[in-house]
Amino acid sequence: MAMKAVIKGGDGGGGCMVVVAHVLAVAATAMVLVWCVHFRGGLALRSHNKQLIFNTHPVLMVLGLVVLAAEAILSYRSLSIIVSSRDARKKVHLGLHAVGLALGGVGIYAVFKYHAEADIPNLYSLHSWIGIATISLYALHWLLAFLTFFFPGASHDTRRSAVPWHALLGLLVFALAVGNAQLGFLEKLTFLQAPPLRLSRYGAEALLVNFTALVVLLLGVAVVLATANVDSTKYTAM
Amino acid sequence: MAMKAVIKGGDGGGGCMVVVAHVLAVAATAMVLVWCVHFRGGLALRSHNKQLIFNTHPVLMVLGLVVLAAEAILSYRSLSIIVSSRDARKKVHLGLHAVGLALGGVGIYAVFKYHAEADIPNLYSLHSWIGIATISLYALHWLLAFLTFFFPGASHDTRRSAVPWHALLGLLVFALAVGNAQLGFLEKLTFLQAPPLRLSRYGAEALLVNFTALVVLLLGVAVVLATANVDSTKYTAM
Repeated sequence: MAMKAVIKGGDGGGGCMVVVAHVLAVAATAMVLVWCVHFRGGLALRSHNKQLIFNTHPVLMVLGLVVLAAEAILSYRSLSIIVSSRDARKKVHLGLHAVGLALGGVGIYAVFKYHAEADIPNLYSLHSWIGIATISLYALHWLLAFLTFFFPGASHDTRRSAVPWHALLGLLVFALAVGNAQLGFLEKLTFLQAPPLRLSRYGAEALLVNFTALVVLLLGVAVVLATANVDSTKYTAM
Repeated sequence: MAMKAVIKGGDGGGGCMVVVAHVLAVAATAMVLVWCVHFRGGLALRSHNKQLIFNTHPVLMVLGLVVLAAEAILSYRSLSIIVSSRDARKKVHLGLHAVGLALGGVGIYAVFKYHAEADIPNLYSLHSWIGIATISLYALHWLLAFLTFFFPGASHDTRRSAVPWHALLGLLVFALAVGNAQLGFLEKLTFLQAPPLRLSRYGAEALLVNFTALVVLLLGVAVVLATANVDSTKYTAM
């Protein structure tokens, strides 16, 4: 009596959504850069202008835990035409996630450095709590997957049992990253709209930040839909 | 070569997660009530104290679009022992979602009424944008499901094809509601921590709001895990 939608951890399916996801990934990267460079003054890890240190945080988090993570999740499908070896695509999947995780790590370092130098307290907001949980789960998930599927690698049966859990829990961690990016955009814009800056609520920068957040959200939805493969042919009706 | 995790729209599976979800649903309801009644002064739809009108918004949104929506999603499984008729459980599923949607509608009315009476602009924040999109998608999804599965009802084949999409897209709308609740808790707490109230960043109320948000988030994860049924026995390994 089960009616099923399927989350696939393997090849094939969702071709249209993969293209949509790539376009949204490029758009999200461009938009967060325009915001932080054009509207907020640029990026730096060392500067007398502490805001520039903060600015590296949203750029690296979006690039690492959302854009590269999305490309890593989709890499089995994206590369199926140009990279015929499944083993090579597995290394791309693993490598993109590792680079994404590293960029996310630097992005979190940047915001702690900004807080320290601008005398702002740490870890009081929901965004920071969920952020620490998300990057910790991301790192743990990567490590367990590396040990299970890459080196030293578990037995064939264990790998077979682990794959759907890997796909489902990996998507959940990715959804947390996408959701927490929403929290970050909202939190920063709320600060900018409060005194002393009092940024216009309907101005160009406010609209850019909200639309960047929406593009990140739609990217998350596209990745889930590209990964889900609805197949109802075998099941009974409701 | 597909490795699959399955989202089930039907009966059975995830028993432990269903119990966890019920407990988290009760906790989320109690916590948002303690926050809005004990810390924020109570609930009202008419009052000289406009904050009381606002307070009905988080309570009704959490109760409607998160707690009742979660119970509606899980109702096929929760009630499988005490309600033997599948048709009766379908009516409970439909009815709980209808009540959840109605409470959500009153919750959105409350926040617009608060804005009007307290002279606060509407629809500038990411929370409000995603909120309007979410309740619109929720209503559309409910209506399409009513027409397809209940009255007048589509053909057997159409219903069979529609069920996995109904389950997947329904879970996506639920995830949007859970994520947007996070945005709402963060936005309101950020306002309360700014001048003039300057609520303590690590005080009892701040911790309660953040933990309420986390309980809502964990409820969302529990519903997804209770609905997903990982079955890898038929599939090849990575």
